[in-house]
Amino acid sequence: MKGTTVEAGEVSKQSTPGSRGVNKVLSLMDFIMRIIAALGTLASSIAMGTTRQTLPFVTRFVRFKAVYKDLPTFTFFVIANSIVCGYLVISLCLSFFHIIKSAAVRSRIFLVIFDTVMMALLTAAASAAAAIVAVAHNGSTGANWFPICQQYRSFCERISGSLIGSFISIIVLVLIIIVTSVAISRR
Amino acid sequence: MKGTTVEAGEVSKQSTPGSRGVNKVLSLMDFIMRIIAALGTLASSIAMGTTRQTLPFVTRFVRFKAVYKDLPTFTFFVIANSIVCGYLVISLCLSFFHIIKSAAVRSRIFLVIFDTVMMALLTAAASAAAAIVAVAHNGSTGANWFPICQQYRSFCERISGSLIGSFISIIVLVLIIIVTSVAISRR
Repeated sequence: MKGTTVEAGEVSKQSTPGSRGVNKVLSLMDFIMRIIAALGTLASSIAMGTTRQTLPFVTRFVRFKAVYKDLPTFTFFVIANSIVCGYLVISLCLSFFHIIKSAAVRSRIFLVIFDTVMMALLTAAASAAAAIVAVAHNGSTGANWFPICQQYRSFCERISGSLIGSFISIIVLVLIIIVTSVAISRR
Repeated sequence: MKGTTVEAGEVSKQSTPGSRGVNKVLSLMDFIMRIIAALGTLASSIAMGTTRQTLPFVTRFVRFKAVYKDLPTFTFFVIANSIVCGYLVISLCLSFFHIIKSAAVRSRIFLVIFDTVMMALLTAAASAAAAIVAVAHNGSTGANWFPICQQYRSFCERISGSLIGSFISIIVLVLIIIVTSVAISRR
């Protein structure tokens, strides 16, 4: 009986051709989704990082200028998007390895762990930026914060747009984690 | 040869006693971590939801009062924490089922999917609230937003404190997803 179990363990490591095919498709989906997410974060960090607006009037002492560095939340947004983008590009190698060797499990768990952490990082950055953008648009009567978007209209439009790429990447990262979990269960 | 494979597949479904023991430990960890995360979100939503401060002076028209509802981000924070807390309590049933039946895979994938979504929701709420709290504390010279914490000191201290529970829950949720992935891979 003991002998059979050991033998069974050996054989079960070679998955059936059908499940291997499904795992290859899942790995391919994973690879493509990683590219999409990487492009999303890249677009976001470029859009936020390059946005600046100078108002067409100056006082004697002040030149009215808005860049992302004025608010630490936006700096965090650019850094977090760059980190996640870099990670996703590097993870493409491992994802490509999974297409070839679709039964790999340990490296998939490794990816799930990092994907989850990166998703948390990106979600934190994107929602913090979104909260600030919301205040910039609407202001806050309770806190007496003035909506700066009334002056810096084009600045506000661009930073609002730059959030889109991040939120698409977050959704794609959720899908990546789900697909990887399914692939792990199907080996 | 074909016969052997089928037989192997049958046997491999019954995991070895050793791996079953490890899976039981993982399931138990999962159960305990869910309780911790649920308590964290509960504490956060109660702390944020019950905070109010009225300043000791009034003008003829205005009574200076701060509640969480003044800022939509804080309302989102309370709602998201309540949703995640409710989900975690419900998921305890399934987590308990995994302690008894530690080889279950499909229900674990089900949990990973919802855990990931809930983690994203909680991270979004907590970091949006943190971004607003940061502005409330430090203000923003660029945007000309005044730090309201200088007046509403006790309100600010309590809402800052209420973030802690959420961030602990986020870390615990990341650990839960990792533990579940490992458990799925070990069946």
